[in-house]
Amino acid sequence: MKNMLDGIEEVLLMGPGPSCVPPQVYEAIGKKTLGHLDPYFLKIMDELKEHLRTLLNTKNNLTVPISGTGSAGMEACFVNLIEPGDKVLILINGVFGVRMREVASRLGAEVDALEFIWGTPVVVDDVAKKLKEKTYRIVAVVHAETSTGVCNPVEEIGALLKGSDTIYLVDTVTSLGGIEVRMDDWGIDALYSGTQKCLSCPPGLAPLSFSDKAMARLGARKTRVPNWYLDISLIANYWSQNRVYHHTAPVNMVYALYQALLLILEEGPVQVFKRHRDTHRMLVKGLEGMGLKMVVDKTRRLPMLNTAWCPEGIDELAARRCLRSEYKIEIGGGLGPLAGKIWRIGLMGHTARKENVERFLDALRKVIS
Amino acid sequence: MKNMLDGIEEVLLMGPGPSCVPPQVYEAIGKKTLGHLDPYFLKIMDELKEHLRTLLNTKNNLTVPISGTGSAGMEACFVNLIEPGDKVLILINGVFGVRMREVASRLGAEVDALEFIWGTPVVVDDVAKKLKEKTYRIVAVVHAETSTGVCNPVEEIGALLKGSDTIYLVDTVTSLGGIEVRMDDWGIDALYSGTQKCLSCPPGLAPLSFSDKAMARLGARKTRVPNWYLDISLIANYWSQNRVYHHTAPVNMVYALYQALLLILEEGPVQVFKRHRDTHRMLVKGLEGMGLKMVVDKTRRLPMLNTAWCPEGIDELAARRCLRSEYKIEIGGGLGPLAGKIWRIGLMGHTARKENVERFLDALRKVIS
Repeated sequence: MKNMLDGIEEVLLMGPGPSCVPPQVYEAIGKKTLGHLDPYFLKIMDELKEHLRTLLNTKNNLTVPISGTGSAGMEACFVNLIEPGDKVLILINGVFGVRMREVASRLGAEVDALEFIWGTPVVVDDVAKKLKEKTYRIVAVVHAETSTGVCNPVEEIGALLKGSDTIYLVDTVTSLGGIEVRMDDWGIDALYSGTQKCLSCPPGLAPLSFSDKAMARLGARKTRVPNWYLDISLIANYWSQNRVYHHTAPVNMVYALYQALLLILEEGPVQVFKRHRDTHRMLVKGLEGMGLKMVVDKTRRLPMLNTAWCPEGIDELAARRCLRSEYKIEIGGGLGPLAGKIWRIGLMGHTARKENVERFLDALRKVIS
Repeated sequence: MKNMLDGIEEVLLMGPGPSCVPPQVYEAIGKKTLGHLDPYFLKIMDELKEHLRTLLNTKNNLTVPISGTGSAGMEACFVNLIEPGDKVLILINGVFGVRMREVASRLGAEVDALEFIWGTPVVVDDVAKKLKEKTYRIVAVVHAETSTGVCNPVEEIGALLKGSDTIYLVDTVTSLGGIEVRMDDWGIDALYSGTQKCLSCPPGLAPLSFSDKAMARLGARKTRVPNWYLDISLIANYWSQNRVYHHTAPVNMVYALYQALLLILEEGPVQVFKRHRDTHRMLVKGLEGMGLKMVVDKTRRLPMLNTAWCPEGIDELAARRCLRSEYKIEIGGGLGPLAGKIWRIGLMGHTARKENVERFLDALRKVIS
């Protein structure tokens, strides 16, 4: 029979994720499958948790990869921490904030949203004002808004919530591994991420961490978590020394994430973040040199997700299709109000290397000339 | 830094899953990651759906892998088809029936259960009697009960429900790829499976299929599905020609499942099922030759999951540990009322080969002598 996999070509992944995967991670994902309760696999799990804690700058015991993609991480955070009628504040300035509102609403939360123009950051003073008006069980924000390229002031929002009973929930899907995330220092109680962005691992797992305060909230629930698969108490029981079977862990994806984390720790997070910033500057310089304008104000730009306005007279979609077919480069288009107007150019993890920026700028120059 | 992955040894996986993975599937999972909206990846998705339909013997349009393990498939079926207060009948004769009850209860269903002794099959006449007493929105059963080794009469139960408004929901996690599953002929409306059993692919995806009747039920919901990540309408919109972004598909796991399905179709399902039966007979003969007794009656035994009573005077756990450490073979122990009393010996997919049965029987003989 015909095997479509034989026709897979290597594409330079410079979109909003997945990102390029380093050879060591490809090697890791193809290692021999062990049983999900195998004594050696359990040791790998323990080390993976340690590496994840290091990268998150947290001491949280409950720090594990959830068996689903980044969106499963979002679902897991909300479904474990929300009970029907809970007051939740979502700070929205892009697709992933909108998604948070959708997820929380479906779970019966009483959701308020503070909305900001897409492409601009959450305004801390507006949040402070809102918090004086009303007390929330949960305040949630996206660190790196993948749909716009904006870095939100997660640390400053956290400072507003310190000492309160409110649970602070942060999406670090696109930020983790590309810029610093200091979970404990910033007062984050619940955090999720994804493997396919700056961790440079194929999609399929969602790193997640809960503070003791979040675990206490979970323990004090009056209702059962209405999602058995993502019930953190049960998942914690498997990932702890208890090793109680819950569901079969995605063993080979766990290998891949282990290797991806190891590569970041070996290179050193400080150096990795610098590599993201350096390639980002190089990219912006190149784009501006071609006459393109960036969407986000310089002070709030993400290094790993760069948004530029598509120049007038250029067919946005046709240009992306040409990059993919002629140059084997993937970049992303806009979403929501930015659809058809912007390009999203990822420099995530293994993709964030100078030779990739050069290759992309050369190709784009040809495509739009 | 120390890399634990370097120490992974090949283990003969003869437990209740994961099973041994063929070399072609390891190769597939390590292929270059494509974007989840890449035109070539979309072609792979389309072919994968076709292969899945062939193996399931269904024409159902909605036939896709869910981005989670088999248990996510269970969660997806129930959360999409249940609304609070719905009457649900679960047929229970093992761990996975118990899990179904738990999942459905958490979603606010009014759950009745018909329970049968673990190690014996669901009795069709008892189900018929129950269905005369009360009308159910959903009747759910596990085809191959992995915790006991029993094959349930899925076709016969389906016959009782034909022509009714009841949704027939079947777990085929352990059966699919090892024995025949005829989704349409048997009147199954909602079905899920897992990759890590007889499909011989690492764990991480849950094949799922909904009949038109199940899709109509979903469309007629009065409440939103309280789980954004597993909302089948949104997932269907990504896997259909619409290609609407929902979450990032686990690209490399999709490659692996594609390859695993291809291998089964190339060998031919009839031959694959025969290979499972042949190795099963060989195993049973070997076990009985050593004086072991099988748990399940001969007429209801699963070929891919064999349960035998641990002989008197043998330390059940110590024997399994010895098999793993001395002979690099994994088998499973009992669960629930069968914990410490039985062994669960898997012959799933790529594991179901004569040389594996011989190697295991030789090892077990030494361990218990």
